[in-house]
Amino acid sequence: MIEIPARKGKAVRVGQGQRVRVVNTKGQQVVDTWAFNAEDMREFMSMEHSRVAIGRIIPAIGDALVTNKRRPILTLVEDTSGGIHDTLFASCDRWRYELLGCSEYHDNCTDNLWAALKALGLEPPETPAPLNLFMNIPVIDGNRVEVRPPVSTPGSYVSLRAEMDCIVAFSACPQDMLPVNGLTMRPTEAHFELLD
Amino acid sequence: MIEIPARKGKAVRVGQGQRVRVVNTKGQQVVDTWAFNAEDMREFMSMEHSRVAIGRIIPAIGDALVTNKRRPILTLVEDTSGGIHDTLFASCDRWRYELLGCSEYHDNCTDNLWAALKALGLEPPETPAPLNLFMNIPVIDGNRVEVRPPVSTPGSYVSLRAEMDCIVAFSACPQDMLPVNGLTMRPTEAHFELLD
Repeated sequence: MIEIPARKGKAVRVGQGQRVRVVNTKGQQVVDTWAFNAEDMREFMSMEHSRVAIGRIIPAIGDALVTNKRRPILTLVEDTSGGIHDTLFASCDRWRYELLGCSEYHDNCTDNLWAALKALGLEPPETPAPLNLFMNIPVIDGNRVEVRPPVSTPGSYVSLRAEMDCIVAFSACPQDMLPVNGLTMRPTEAHFELLD
Repeated sequence: MIEIPARKGKAVRVGQGQRVRVVNTKGQQVVDTWAFNAEDMREFMSMEHSRVAIGRIIPAIGDALVTNKRRPILTLVEDTSGGIHDTLFASCDRWRYELLGCSEYHDNCTDNLWAALKALGLEPPETPAPLNLFMNIPVIDGNRVEVRPPVSTPGSYVSLRAEMDCIVAFSACPQDMLPVNGLTMRPTEAHFELLD
């Protein structure tokens, strides 16, 4: 099991057909997730294309998330977390924390994505909208969105099967000013493992 | 009034404080809309950041759409169209039409964005998720999304006030294989005008 340290990111190469199992070690920890075509980083998992492809805002088991070229890249194949994830919200960034009143630097998922890829010698062409695993953003009355604590329990997990050779990046969301990561607002570590 | 030709795009410079009124000339015509900071095209209107900012998936009068730096760029100030717009779906592209069975080139909003900007000597850093004016994609039971005909009537309009000097690009969506632009599936022209 590889650790995604609390408040930080981690990226990994995943071969076509391999699965990556993302474990919510402590429960209620959101894990922002991105995937890039290993052959061409300009092709990446896209939430706005995936919603069209799957006909839902939250992927269900069997749903293939697609790239900005509308090709399957990651398929959700297991989910013991309660099935609540988010595709609507941008990853947090320095501007998000500034608007929340933070005057000093705050860890954020956007910088974590870039740092995690840099550790592999890679650079993304942009910051795609993430698949926010375990994040609970209900759409109420077909329109209103609200930040709620995750429903995922400790040790619950999702597995994603790679449909092409890809780079998958994770960030254990450092949000500690809103109940994104539970009412205690204490970001924790998460883990992942690669399965053949 | 400036025409957005049927199936094509058009971009315009809009000064801070100016309003751009987008008219659904024939009714039921979706208009994909993008905005870029005139000083730095890498900053642009972002749907995933805007949903966080406005707490809704469909902007209402008074809502400021924000950029990928979370700064207001366009505020919805008038809307006679019925208030149904979409922020969830990617703009159509060649891959979308190929998947729908099109074997030859099909006009598409993504290419229209790039062509409209090119006509001003500009190039976007990427294809941001668009604000799909007049597009009717309800979120059913908090999850399922469905393509429905627009509710907008001929001559109805929305007005967007620029909160910074920006480039606004439009595409009169050429979708004629699904009822995105009404049950007749006949894309039409739309218009816009700049108001001080």
